[in-house]
Amino acid sequence: MNLLSSREIRLERRPVGSPVLEDFSLHTVEVPAPAEGLVRVRNLWMSVDPYMGGRLYDNHDSYVPPYRLNHPLDGGAVGVVVDSADSQFKPGDIVFSQYGWREIYNAPAKRLRRIDTDGLPPEAFLGIAGVTGRTAYVGLFSIGQIKAGETVYVSAAAGAVGSAAVQMAKIAGCTVIGSAGGKEKCDYLRSIGADHVIDYKSEDLEAALKAAAPEGIDFYFDNVGGPQLEAALNAMKTFGRIALCGMISQYNESGVSGPGNIVQILAKRLTVRGFILGDHEDERPAFERDVRDWIKSGQLKWQQTVEHGIANAPAAFLKLFKGGNIGKMVVKLSD
Amino acid sequence: MNLLSSREIRLERRPVGSPVLEDFSLHTVEVPAPAEGLVRVRNLWMSVDPYMGGRLYDNHDSYVPPYRLNHPLDGGAVGVVVDSADSQFKPGDIVFSQYGWREIYNAPAKRLRRIDTDGLPPEAFLGIAGVTGRTAYVGLFSIGQIKAGETVYVSAAAGAVGSAAVQMAKIAGCTVIGSAGGKEKCDYLRSIGADHVIDYKSEDLEAALKAAAPEGIDFYFDNVGGPQLEAALNAMKTFGRIALCGMISQYNESGVSGPGNIVQILAKRLTVRGFILGDHEDERPAFERDVRDWIKSGQLKWQQTVEHGIANAPAAFLKLFKGGNIGKMVVKLSD
Repeated sequence: MNLLSSREIRLERRPVGSPVLEDFSLHTVEVPAPAEGLVRVRNLWMSVDPYMGGRLYDNHDSYVPPYRLNHPLDGGAVGVVVDSADSQFKPGDIVFSQYGWREIYNAPAKRLRRIDTDGLPPEAFLGIAGVTGRTAYVGLFSIGQIKAGETVYVSAAAGAVGSAAVQMAKIAGCTVIGSAGGKEKCDYLRSIGADHVIDYKSEDLEAALKAAAPEGIDFYFDNVGGPQLEAALNAMKTFGRIALCGMISQYNESGVSGPGNIVQILAKRLTVRGFILGDHEDERPAFERDVRDWIKSGQLKWQQTVEHGIANAPAAFLKLFKGGNIGKMVVKLSD
Repeated sequence: MNLLSSREIRLERRPVGSPVLEDFSLHTVEVPAPAEGLVRVRNLWMSVDPYMGGRLYDNHDSYVPPYRLNHPLDGGAVGVVVDSADSQFKPGDIVFSQYGWREIYNAPAKRLRRIDTDGLPPEAFLGIAGVTGRTAYVGLFSIGQIKAGETVYVSAAAGAVGSAAVQMAKIAGCTVIGSAGGKEKCDYLRSIGADHVIDYKSEDLEAALKAAAPEGIDFYFDNVGGPQLEAALNAMKTFGRIALCGMISQYNESGVSGPGNIVQILAKRLTVRGFILGDHEDERPAFERDVRDWIKSGQLKWQQTVEHGIANAPAAFLKLFKGGNIGKMVVKLSD
């Protein structure tokens, strides 16, 4: 049978209020050798992402389906092919998949994407060279249409998407304001080139935005929603643009009240657009070319927070909502 | 001296909370014959508009400057030239100006725009053939980019801008949902061709929207903000567009909380844009051509609520915020 033992994280129950460790459970399964057309993969790294928070709840209005109870969660992962019963893959290939939250799995070849790591570490494809980097890229260039000389504000700027957005906006010739909570994150923001750094935990955000951009903000890359969106609306320039990307502060809440100053969208003739990466697949080739160039030239750096082992994945995930990470949060599953 | 007596409405004090009659005062002034370059005009009609509400307060963040205390208010008006000391105008010319809220005035020629009424009544140029009609036109075609076959929702649809938008969207081949408060307004909406009419005072707006548009709304023309915007966000189609035009429910309030479901902008990848007519002057010729064609062909109708005399202008204005009007609210100042 050639079984391989694999551990996986399942959704034990739907959270009541914010998610807690007890909502998740660890299980061991046996993964057989791949049948025809399947590929057996051992995950090296898995991603935990804020959007997964919304999938824990039974909310069918969401743009991604809810996780199923008593089934393994899923999400981005990078692994190595162990055995292949499909001619497109061979042992040793590095592949990206959505089969995260588990150690070993069988999947149809069409659900895997081979990665040419091109000298980058595999986990980069869960972050700067993957979904998070591409989110920053699409948000700035496609949704935001940023131009050199403009003032760009990025919230949650020490996070995975945020820190990529800060650097890419600098590469594009913009003046960049980044906000984050706490000295460590703010120091990090300065180290990656943000022109103005705001510690929203110790400063009045709206006053700080107006001081950093007395003429106003041209483009706001919103990663958080909530009070930060409200402050930004008041600091925008006439005809400014706002991209809504993540809204981490709202994923685990219901009945939150929105910004009280929506009227600014009218008064300042703003354009506010939500976007989701899946709608922008056609921009992938340009991103892959640019991001490798920028990494190799040293213009684009990244930081990650690493947790180890499948058993620690739920705790790593919950840290996302407590501001516990700088850069991309990833979980290392095997060497 | 050839003085002409004129009465005018001044801002006596800034409102505390919602505006009341006592915030306004009536004064009589003497208007001399026009000096060189000036034109003396007797107003026939003046406009009262929701946006004026925002100008009563000392809010310098607004897109129009606040009214000055102890000065006459201003706003759209149509008048007839009485005497002219400028070669561009002669007695009897019908002119549009921003010198509303007064009976007679002197103005530089450059502040007046001659109207070729082309068989339309002069007050139409304060409504369907003027700013309100043009607001509907720009909102639908320039901001909303509506296309035949789409589902369009218009709030405050029995109002001046709303009723123009309902009819123009029908002319464009859209399915149109209109909401208004009360049976009389809803009957009016049916009479101008709305496909679905929602009485937001007696129906659950969100449920009614979902029943009227089970596939979702492509474009929402938001004239009110507040809870109506919240309901619409939940009823939008993926990739839907929203234009924020007036936000009458918010002009006289401060500290209102916004929609709690802003996250829908992200989840549904909506585009929300605020707009102000002054930014769309280049679309005026197309509007003037289309609106006259539509009126003459009987495709575009309008209704107005008329109050009489300058002394009643503040009361007419305050009615706007109590839902007292169907169609455009205008004040007749003289024959």
